[in-house]
Amino acid sequence: MMLTEWLTNIQFNQELFTEVIEYIGTFAFAISGIRLAAGKDFDLFGAYVVGLVTAIGGGTIRDLCLDLTPFWMLNASYLIWTATALLFVILFRKHLIRLNNTFFIFDTIGLALFTVVGIEKTLDCNYAFWVAIIMGTITGAAGGIIRDIFINQIPLIFRKEIYAIACIIGGIIYYISSKFIDDVTLVQIISALSVILTRVIAVKYKIGLPHIKGEPN
Amino acid sequence: MMLTEWLTNIQFNQELFTEVIEYIGTFAFAISGIRLAAGKDFDLFGAYVVGLVTAIGGGTIRDLCLDLTPFWMLNASYLIWTATALLFVILFRKHLIRLNNTFFIFDTIGLALFTVVGIEKTLDCNYAFWVAIIMGTITGAAGGIIRDIFINQIPLIFRKEIYAIACIIGGIIYYISSKFIDDVTLVQIISALSVILTRVIAVKYKIGLPHIKGEPN
Amino acid sequence: MMLTEWLTNIQFNQELFTEVIEYIGTFAFAISGIRLAAGKDFDLFGAYVVGLVTAIGGGTIRDLCLDLTPFWMLNASYLIWTATALLFVILFRKHLIRLNNTFFIFDTIGLALFTVVGIEKTLDCNYAFWVAIIMGTITGAAGGIIRDIFINQIPLIFRKEIYAIACIIGGIIYYISSKFIDDVTLVQIISALSVILTRVIAVKYKIGLPHIKGEPN
Repeated sequence: MMLTEWLTNIQFNQELFTEVIEYIGTFAFAISGIRLAAGKDFDLFGAYVVGLVTAIGGGTIRDLCLDLTPFWMLNASYLIWTATALLFVILFRKHLIRLNNTFFIFDTIGLALFTVVGIEKTLDCNYAFWVAIIMGTITGAAGGIIRDIFINQIPLIFRKEIYAIACIIGGIIYYISSKFIDDVTLVQIISALSVILTRVIAVKYKIGLPHIKGEPN
Repeated sequence: MMLTEWLTNIQFNQELFTEVIEYIGTFAFAISGIRLAAGKDFDLFGAYVVGLVTAIGGGTIRDLCLDLTPFWMLNASYLIWTATALLFVILFRKHLIRLNNTFFIFDTIGLALFTVVGIEKTLDCNYAFWVAIIMGTITGAAGGIIRDIFINQIPLIFRKEIYAIACIIGGIIYYISSKFIDDVTLVQIISALSVILTRVIAVKYKIGLPHIKGEPN
Repeated sequence: MMLTEWLTNIQFNQELFTEVIEYIGTFAFAISGIRLAAGKDFDLFGAYVVGLVTAIGGGTIRDLCLDLTPFWMLNASYLIWTATALLFVILFRKHLIRLNNTFFIFDTIGLALFTVVGIEKTLDCNYAFWVAIIMGTITGAAGGIIRDIFINQIPLIFRKEIYAIACIIGGIIYYISSKFIDDVTLVQIISALSVILTRVIAVKYKIGLPHIKGEPN
């Protein structure tokens, strides 16, 4: 009886833990959208929408492809966290640059968790693993693509830095480790850490993909 | 018997009324898309597509999120009204500017009705009211976002004027008045009028949202 | 018994034939996306995504509207052919311009087949024929629209050449010929040929749609 209680408790804590990290990720993603919108002279509504779409856009495309109800329609937290991010940017506008490293950490943790959530949801729908890797990548990276389209720029992740590739690597490592490890939670943690590690190493050592060359005239 | 007939008749008239206003809205939305496309040297096909997407884009996103068949796939009228709008722009090109106030009225009535339709459809699917407000706003405002992306500009509603905010206010007033009034039709009318009023006041007195400031370099 | 076998065999060959042409189309569409991405200094990941979206974007929108699982989630071939296209562009970069006519043929065949596939899938879902024509056109032409949005340009098909119109003509000819011909395969071939013919004639004789004129200032 006590053991069951204890296990239920652990379970609860894990769910809470995931939830907290997901909100941190939402907050960080929204901040990135709102800051870019601010640089383009958006009004408060425009900045909010760009922040929201950055945070929930990828997951929405994933859910539509999986024929699920878009996740944010079942829980208002994502909208509230985006509003908090907007307030945060307005209040601390002058100090944001100094927080860049903090945002980078939050954004990367968010990316990792979004990837794992995308993989999980897709596997739950019984799709092949390569579909899950794509959906994990879409969950993590597609919001940023819509954000850049909204501010009328070529999506950053098509030209700079390792970003979506970190999701793909995290997905592949999820697949490989799930072959050897039975504990799903452990597999998820390993996968998320590999996303974080890939991204941190890429940014620290300025590793990017080669660019594709245009044709000679 | 006579009362039933009379009620059925009223019902019919209300549906007809809604339909007529919805087509007016479609026409006005399509005109706005086609005129912007004309300014960017689109061909007839391009102008038609931009007009169509302006008119039906928001409702399509709403229906996909609600897991419904996109409304225009069940009724060809929206395509036909868009074609009429294209013909109208071609024929009366030189006189359109003088009609700007008329278009503004049509566009605003369309916005109001699209918002109410979006709210209704979402409530019919048993979602929370805040989801309905978002879906009402998407129905009214998302078509214009896609339009602006198609003509490669930053969406107007992110930087100028009260537009989507009018939908949100209309949604909130729908919610509040539904708490006090049992007659759904009356609630819908009040909500639609509040959208129209908000937009008219905002444009007349040039009321806009504050812009979010960029960061100091 | 032998006849049945023979018929089954024919059936198999037709499916194989369709599949081969579909992959040729995917390859050609992906090439067009990757080449444009290369001209905009995309990295390998960006070029791959643009190629992929050009190839599968239209069919994905179609499947979401029809409430079907996006076709590429059920068969990895489309991803593999896009990767092949990326490799091809990298290896033969300097010689691609000389192959322009070949790509034009492939792209046009792909367009024709994508259109027919879109029509078929929509009719299978019991929608009206005009919906099928639109879905055929979306399948053929929407990927190119997303491609151009990703590289931050006004979609080419809104301003230049007969492209989507070829899909619409192919759809109308499908409809008319299905009234007189019972053999579905024959109807499909006639429809596909009419798409190809329309496009080839339009490009050879530089036939385009009239442009819609802007308003006088």
